[in-house]
Formats: sequence, C-alpha cells, structure tokens
Amino acid sequence: MQAQRQVIRCKAAVAWEPGKPLSIEDVDVAPPKAHEVRIKVVATGVCHTDWSYLREPGVGMTLRPFPLVLGHEAAGIVESVGPEVTLFSPGDKVIPLFLPQCGVCERCGSPKTNQCRKNWANTQAGVLADGTSRISCKGQQIYQFLGISSFSQYTVVPDISLAKIRSDAPLDKVFLLGCGVSTGYGAALNTGKVERDSSCAVFGLGAVGLAAIMGCKAAMAKRIIGVDINPDKFEKATLFGATECINPLEHKKPIQKVLVELTNGGVDYALECVGSTAVMSAALESTTDACGTCVIAGWTETEAMSVPVVKLLMGRTLKGTYFGGWKGARDLPRLVDDYMNKKLKLNEFITGTLPLEQINVAFDLLQSGNSIRTMISLQNPRVGSTPVNL
Amino acid sequence: MQAQRQVIRCKAAVAWEPGKPLSIEDVDVAPPKAHEVRIKVVATGVCHTDWSYLREPGVGMTLRPFPLVLGHEAAGIVESVGPEVTLFSPGDKVIPLFLPQCGVCERCGSPKTNQCRKNWANTQAGVLADGTSRISCKGQQIYQFLGISSFSQYTVVPDISLAKIRSDAPLDKVFLLGCGVSTGYGAALNTGKVERDSSCAVFGLGAVGLAAIMGCKAAMAKRIIGVDINPDKFEKATLFGATECINPLEHKKPIQKVLVELTNGGVDYALECVGSTAVMSAALESTTDACGTCVIAGWTETEAMSVPVVKLLMGRTLKGTYFGGWKGARDLPRLVDDYMNKKLKLNEFITGTLPLEQINVAFDLLQSGNSIRTMISLQNPRVGSTPVNL
Repeated sequence: MQAQRQVIRCKAAVAWEPGKPLSIEDVDVAPPKAHEVRIKVVATGVCHTDWSYLREPGVGMTLRPFPLVLGHEAAGIVESVGPEVTLFSPGDKVIPLFLPQCGVCERCGSPKTNQCRKNWANTQAGVLADGTSRISCKGQQIYQFLGISSFSQYTVVPDISLAKIRSDAPLDKVFLLGCGVSTGYGAALNTGKVERDSSCAVFGLGAVGLAAIMGCKAAMAKRIIGVDINPDKFEKATLFGATECINPLEHKKPIQKVLVELTNGGVDYALECVGSTAVMSAALESTTDACGTCVIAGWTETEAMSVPVVKLLMGRTLKGTYFGGWKGARDLPRLVDDYMNKKLKLNEFITGTLPLEQINVAFDLLQSGNSIRTMISLQNPRVGSTPVNL
Repeated sequence: MQAQRQVIRCKAAVAWEPGKPLSIEDVDVAPPKAHEVRIKVVATGVCHTDWSYLREPGVGMTLRPFPLVLGHEAAGIVESVGPEVTLFSPGDKVIPLFLPQCGVCERCGSPKTNQCRKNWANTQAGVLADGTSRISCKGQQIYQFLGISSFSQYTVVPDISLAKIRSDAPLDKVFLLGCGVSTGYGAALNTGKVERDSSCAVFGLGAVGLAAIMGCKAAMAKRIIGVDINPDKFEKATLFGATECINPLEHKKPIQKVLVELTNGGVDYALECVGSTAVMSAALESTTDACGTCVIAGWTETEAMSVPVVKLLMGRTLKGTYFGGWKGARDLPRLVDDYMNKKLKLNEFITGTLPLEQINVAFDLLQSGNSIRTMISLQNPRVGSTPVNL
C-alpha cells in the first residue's frame, strides 16, 4: 500500500497554451486524496471537444485555464484509491465520467435528469474538489480537463466520476462510452425518446451522429436519414442503421426544405450532432409540425441559435442533451453489457490506433474528417518510458 | 327550414384595411354550405391577435387578405346547418374553433398533438373550404378570420370547427374558452405538464398569462411568480393563484437573473404569454438547469428568438403551445363543465362589456393595458337593427 501513496511519473500530452500542438511530457501524478481514485488510463479517444478547447477557446467554447491535460473519453484500471473510497479497488476496470453521479443529490434522485452538479464549479476551473490538480510538470501545476485529463498515462478523478465496468470488458473499445457514443446513442433514446416506426434525421456523421443513428435504429425508427457534407461518411452511416443519406451540398434548396419535402412534412425527430448553430436551426426546421422533436447534441458554449417562434408554436419541441441523458455510474455498465452482448456497436467507430506520442496526428485526422475515432493507446511501449512509481 | 337557406343581413365590424379602426357595417351572411354551420354570435372577446392582424400586419404577423371581419374568441347559438351536418342542430350552444378537430386524421388520432390541419390553407387565406367567404358587404366579399369572424352578429363556420357545449352554459362567459383562457390554461397543464410542488414563472399577465397562472395552480405548483411591467395586474394575478409578482422595471438586473437568484437556480417552468422574442429568451433563461421547461404561448408569426445553445445542452426543454394543446371539440365541453362546477374561473377575466358598435374602444382598452378582456355583446339592441332574415 505504501507505493500507492507515492507520486507516479509518467507520460502525458500537455497543452501548454491554446492553439499550439500538444507536447509529450513527463508529468507527476500525485496520489489520490479523500474520495479520489488514481487510474491507469489504457485507452482514450480524441473528441472534437478536446480539439475545440485547444484550438478555438473563446470561439464557441469558454476559456479554460492552461496549461492543461485534455482528454475526457477514456477507459482504464484503478491503480490506487484515496481515503474514504469504498466502491473501487485497485484492478477495477473503470470509465471516467465528466458528468458525475454523486447518488445523493436531488438530481441524482430524479428520473428527469442526469445532471448531477457535484464538483461542477471546480471541474470547470480545471481542478479537483480541493481546488488543486493532481498533475504537475516540472513543478508546475497542470490543470485537469473536465475533472479527467485522460491524455495522461495516469490521472486522478473523484470517486463519483467513475463507472465500474465488468472485468472482461475490452478497454480499447469501451472507452468510446465515455463521451461520444453514449452522447449520440442517448440523445436518440433518452432525450429524444425516438419512437418505433418514426422518421429521423441525423445531422453530422461523426462519432456522435453515428451513435445517434444507432440509437434511432435501436428505437426501431422506420426511416433514418443521415445528413453530412462529406459523402465519405455515408457507407458507415448505413452500417450503423441509416436508411438513406443526404449531402446538403448536392441540393440548391436549404437542407431543411429538402427533408420536409422528402418526408412529406418533416421528420419526427432531428438530432443535431455537429455543434453549428446554423445546422441546429436547420435541424429544428426539418421536423414536422404538430409533434416534431429536435435534440441538440452538438456542443457550443457561447453561441446562440435562431429559432423561428412559429416553428415552436406549431408544436415542435427543442431540447439539448448532455452525455445523452445517461446517469453514468448506473448506466455505463449496462451499455458495456449491451456491447458484450452485441446489441451495441463500438468497434466500427474506431478508424485507427495511435500511441500517445502521435496524438497530434489524431487531432489532424479528426479535423480533416478522415477519422471517426482514433484510439490513443497510452500503455504502448512506443510512448517511451513506461510508468513507474518514483 | 326555408328561412335557414336565406341570406341574413346583420351588423358586423369590418376591417376595410390594415391600420384603420373597424367600421360597423351591414353585412350579408350566406347560408351554410355542406358541412358548414351558421351561428348567431352572442359574445366575443377582443384578443391581442385580432389587434395585431389589424394594426401590425407584417410586423410579427403574416399579411392577411383585407377587407375582413376579425374575431375568433366567441360563443353563440346554431342558427342553421348546411347539408351533411349531423352533429349540430339549430339552437345548440357552441364555441367556434380556430383550430378544427376533424376527428379522422392522424393528428386527431394522436395523443401527442391537437394540431389538426384540415382546412388549414384556406383558413389562412381567409376563406372556407370552397375557397369563398360567407360574408359580404355591399356586394363585396369580406374575408373570414381564422375560419370564424366573430365580430359579426352571424357567421358561418365548418362543422369540424365547433364545440357543442351544455345548454345551461352562459355564453357571455364561456366565450373566453375560444382562445385566450384555454391557451394559457392548457399551456401549463397540457404543454408544460406543470408538476405538483414545482416552481413556475408566468411572463405577461393578460388573459393568457392569468389563465396560465390558473393552470399552474390547478397543477398544484408550489410557487407561481407573475411577471409584468404593469403592476396594476398583480392584484388579479394573485386572485388567479400567483404566490408573488415581480415588475422587471423595478430591477437593475435582467429579469431572468432576478428569477434565477430568487429561486436558487431557476424555475421549473416558465410560460411566455407576451409574444415578445426578448421575453421568450428571458423566460427560457429563467428556468433551471437540468430539467427546466419553457413554454411559448405568446404569438408571433414572423420573428425568431435567440436561444443560447448551452441553455438547452444543460437540460432545458423549449416548446410552443397552440390553443393550449386542447382538442377543442372534445375538450371545451369539459372545460365548460369545470367552469360550471367552479373549478375554473372565467368571470374574473372580464373587465367590461361593450356593444359591437363600440368595439374600437375595446381595442383601445386592450392596447393601453386597461383591460383583461372586454366582452363584446353582439345581440345588444344598442347595435341598431337586430338581425333579420331577408
């Protein structure tokens, strides 16, 4: 147990300042404090949100403190636990949660929301509950991202920000449940509550959008229309359940008009998985009068969308989703089960694997639209020195 | 029966052109055609929507064809029925419906919506199903408003646009169920689905807003906050169930911030009953993270509201209501019952009564905020000649 109280020196991709590539550094990861867990990160995804915070702070995203270690979609193994941690033990397989589930607050007790706000303010500020980060580099504190920072071989997270998953779960696949796949899948199932035999349009065929298509299919929607300006995504969308795909660039009319005509009045459900306010408005306007529902799953923190009021008055509902409405600690183990039972696809999202030292390549692939998800392997020997206790 | 096939000459308030006061004229009301009913209008309200179409066409409202007879919130008695009408007989008490309920379409069969669109296009164009109006003046066709035109002593409406109500219902009260009261009451109960012990804010304390407060109270909300820049409305709001009232002009902070602070995070339900896009945005932002619901009941046809996307992503729902979600033919008789059983207030909305000839005074009272609803009495002898069959 002595070793578990020690600092771990390991590799991490540090964002020293906005707009610059990440830098692979030796960082020190402090032992977990009370109600904290130190995990060995095995696999992490590079999500568009990571890219946005790095490359576009202030443009759609609020400013975060730098330097920081990004990464929030991951899976790992508990290395050690701090005092008062009762639900986790070293060796447990876990998925860290950027949205905690404290289990005792009013929201955790409500069936209407997954939005526990325990630790919210400090998480947004890049630190854990005591106001400090557990990661440092050359003696300087490095801020944590969304309470996680999975672009590090080790990190420390609150014990309410972890889902314990079955021991036979492949971490290099189920890391996807930490953000994008759960968000899109839940946007359809939990937030939109897509109904059997309905018609759906999914805007944006990245990981979130493909997962939304998978959710629409799981809900037994009759017609699932994938929408993207990159037709290279259509094949995969079809694999996930899209019944047809549309490229807005191939139409002179606005895409919402195309969809309304195609569906004789509009789709029952539109899911925006891009994060563009123009696409959000188009998504809302592509839904049917009387009972259309538009779910916003794409992320922007500073922008406003324009909503023609009459579209609401004519019976539409506009909602947003955060982590797909899942209560992570409770629901992720079930989603892992669904994956293990082949009810949920994960492998098909992974378009490549790179070691941590090549994480900037993964960002480039993401930005160019040439990947769905690149799995970053953190325990790969190519990273260089393997983690060791000091 | 012969007389019933004749034209009726009677008084009506004609809007000859936008922006001008209404003119009391002798109009000719043709007999009802197939599936139409001619009604003697006993009482009508002057709704803000009537005012807007007259005074602000193109500003928030689409243009309607002129000349027309406005009026859409009314109650009357069936005078005669056209061929193939089976559900109504002369003498029946009725409330005309600007939103029909054909009873056979998919939407009429759905529990999710009240938005039957039978006759929609022609109604918007100011005519009945055959493309013509039943009202003329000096040989010129006068367009009908929303398929009703209740600012006339007689009018003809489709048989699917009528709710038959009990014979002991006082028409000079229940006319209010034809628009404003039903809209606000249903916005809370049907569209918002306000829950017991919840907190609510109602923006705008006109008839729709007061009815929304009444709906929140019927749903047993714990806290009901009335919001209006005219504090003269607060006493009545309290009568309808507001637990407190706020005047935004008395605060330096935006009203949404005041409400969020007052309720420790925001209200569960916000109901916008003004029709201002700025107020709509404020209403949305006054709701709580995680599960706040904002219902738009105020009317605008051409404007767009600004929605900060993060407000949706944090768990809010934004919806609109049209006629409060009620299926008129089915639900209005029940609301009349509720009024007769003293479960629903109506008398308290009526701040004055005027004969048809003074309808422009009612518009002035509405616009100056010095009335909630003025009841226009159409069968009052002061109007002049009583209606006669030609």
